[in-house]
Amino acid sequence: MTESNSSFWAASRLAAVRPSFIREILKVTEDPSVISFAGGLPNPDLFPLEALGEATAKVLKDEGTQALQYSTTEGYLPLREWIAARYAGRGVEVSPDQILITTGSQQGLDLIGKCFVDGGEPVLLERPGYLGAIQAFALMEPRFCTVPLAKDGPELEPLRQVLAEDEPTVFYAVPNFQNPSGVCWSGAKRAAAVEMLEKSKTLFVEDDPYGELRFAGVSHPPVSSGLEPNRRILLGSFSKVASPGLRVGWLVAGPQLRRHLVTAKQAADLHTSTFNQRILARYLADNDLDAHIATIRDAYGRHAAVMIRTMEEHFPDEVDFTKPEGGMFLWVTLPEGCSAMALFEKAIEAKVAFVPGAPFYVDGSGDNTLRVNFSNANEMMIEEGIRRLADCLKSYLAICRPQP
Amino acid sequence: MTESNSSFWAASRLAAVRPSFIREILKVTEDPSVISFAGGLPNPDLFPLEALGEATAKVLKDEGTQALQYSTTEGYLPLREWIAARYAGRGVEVSPDQILITTGSQQGLDLIGKCFVDGGEPVLLERPGYLGAIQAFALMEPRFCTVPLAKDGPELEPLRQVLAEDEPTVFYAVPNFQNPSGVCWSGAKRAAAVEMLEKSKTLFVEDDPYGELRFAGVSHPPVSSGLEPNRRILLGSFSKVASPGLRVGWLVAGPQLRRHLVTAKQAADLHTSTFNQRILARYLADNDLDAHIATIRDAYGRHAAVMIRTMEEHFPDEVDFTKPEGGMFLWVTLPEGCSAMALFEKAIEAKVAFVPGAPFYVDGSGDNTLRVNFSNANEMMIEEGIRRLADCLKSYLAICRPQP
Repeated sequence: MTESNSSFWAASRLAAVRPSFIREILKVTEDPSVISFAGGLPNPDLFPLEALGEATAKVLKDEGTQALQYSTTEGYLPLREWIAARYAGRGVEVSPDQILITTGSQQGLDLIGKCFVDGGEPVLLERPGYLGAIQAFALMEPRFCTVPLAKDGPELEPLRQVLAEDEPTVFYAVPNFQNPSGVCWSGAKRAAAVEMLEKSKTLFVEDDPYGELRFAGVSHPPVSSGLEPNRRILLGSFSKVASPGLRVGWLVAGPQLRRHLVTAKQAADLHTSTFNQRILARYLADNDLDAHIATIRDAYGRHAAVMIRTMEEHFPDEVDFTKPEGGMFLWVTLPEGCSAMALFEKAIEAKVAFVPGAPFYVDGSGDNTLRVNFSNANEMMIEEGIRRLADCLKSYLAICRPQP
Repeated sequence: MTESNSSFWAASRLAAVRPSFIREILKVTEDPSVISFAGGLPNPDLFPLEALGEATAKVLKDEGTQALQYSTTEGYLPLREWIAARYAGRGVEVSPDQILITTGSQQGLDLIGKCFVDGGEPVLLERPGYLGAIQAFALMEPRFCTVPLAKDGPELEPLRQVLAEDEPTVFYAVPNFQNPSGVCWSGAKRAAAVEMLEKSKTLFVEDDPYGELRFAGVSHPPVSSGLEPNRRILLGSFSKVASPGLRVGWLVAGPQLRRHLVTAKQAADLHTSTFNQRILARYLADNDLDAHIATIRDAYGRHAAVMIRTMEEHFPDEVDFTKPEGGMFLWVTLPEGCSAMALFEKAIEAKVAFVPGAPFYVDGSGDNTLRVNFSNANEMMIEEGIRRLADCLKSYLAICRPQP
């Protein structure tokens, strides 16, 4: 146990976990005059409110008692069957028996941490990496190693090296429109990664909350589809395509992995809400999810286009940014030596907010990066907010990089 | 990592966790001709289906978008306010800031394990103890110690000794109608335990899912109400008084404890379903929960009375059982040397089921005990099932304890 004046006492594993810096930032941005690109919220205007309401009414009428009772840890079978069929439609063979319904994808990370991340053992992350995964795994006190992300996925030579030399037990990645960077792995990098992973003993964990939100370019099958079912775990979620407030996601794992995950899930919360699982199953049976996703894609595509165009027009040339083909985030890189945290202070004064990139790095780097969300604000706000940010950038860069 | 032919590989902490034996038993009891006292299900005929349906419709109509969006880790404030006010009504001072909404009480155990249970450190449980707590804490690889339960609560001299000598970091208990034993701590034992806990450094975790289900005798205030807020955690749940399928519970902890728990909760599942929290808040605002609980108490009281009367009439004299004044479970003790597991085999042949007690003991004892649930079956089934069990007992005891 650790003990200090300020912290009473707590298990020593807590020392590795920082409370989310993003949470703190979101408090600053509650001021309604601030245009915030800091959050990671789906656009609430696009929730299928009416259709979910109809599904809820049917569930309560036809199966209300079952929906309010305890249920199995594995999850509601018709929902698992729907998920398996959807993978089949994408050319990925998955049986309902490989699926475990989770209380959002975040719970999948928690369960994987408990089952497959041992204290002191190496865990491989993308650099930058998803903060929620860093937090969930950190509780299990592993040693983090990282592979740098280029604009088309992980840099291959460092990946080859870290897999061979560190022999990480787990490699966690978000290959489609990653949070925070918006990066999508290219087909070539996917193939190369599969080849390397096949030769390694590393368990590949592929988190894919944003894959369906592609508004440009061509989709790739999951990296995992090239790997043996007991060597990979796929994470999925209804949060970005239906509603995050229901807290329903899933994971896909071969039988040798899944049985451990089911045991851990039982100890974590017994099972995911029966009610919410049945509502989603009914909603998915009665509605065309693809048609709904098309409206989300269209909207986010317009948002991203406005953001990119405004950045191209107004950002100083030495500021770099990704041009995502899907998802909810865009990643900005300032010149070396500049600090997104210092820029953040200026931005808040100018009533615009983003998330400084440093928390997405486990090695203390990334101070010159920042994450910008484009799903939540409307197009007018995006244009106005990015103009404000461009002004901040110009005045900040003049201090940060004084002209000779 | 541990590796074996049968188990692929997994984090070493999994070695400490058995998949729930009860889950396996429940599979055996799926045969509809079996009268099962094995489960731990509330009676579904008593779910407030109509009132929850009305609350759901209102939430979707008035606050649908917010209900479907992400929300804060701490939980929906009006729900926390309702919970705080209910404690006030029982004479316990709790502020909404001390409450953290959890995805069922089971998640509270998971979070407490992560935050306050360190590998190798002693954790104190009642003997027998709640299986869900054993599973959640076991993942953190503590050293379990136990205090025997008498019919009126923990035996005091062993409790004094274990607190003084082992100095457990956590003492976990279910003082009201415990699962599995049905035991309720007496007022005298509560007072004695508080006095001992005040002198110790042990964090007291008081799980109270059944306290409201008292159908005889007089209620006690929580043991925790005598302890300083940063020295105790109270767990509560809507599962037994409204619906378990919604997966909404809570914990109460002083600020020095709660901030760690909020960090762990964020890494576990971000937050509990916004939708379900708002439905419950609306249900509680529009309905008289006490009137609803009264109907549950009356029904469970009738069920328990039938079960106790049938046991008194038909069980062999050398079989002992508790006579609970509330909750959902009754505890049977066979003569020393008999095995509830062997009885279980006979009982399944006779189409009646229960849970053998051994899984509720961390020290390998308890083979002569068993748990019987009285909430789920109706009164006729209870009478018939207990008669069948009595017949099994008579024939089993003749083998187990042959007459001289």
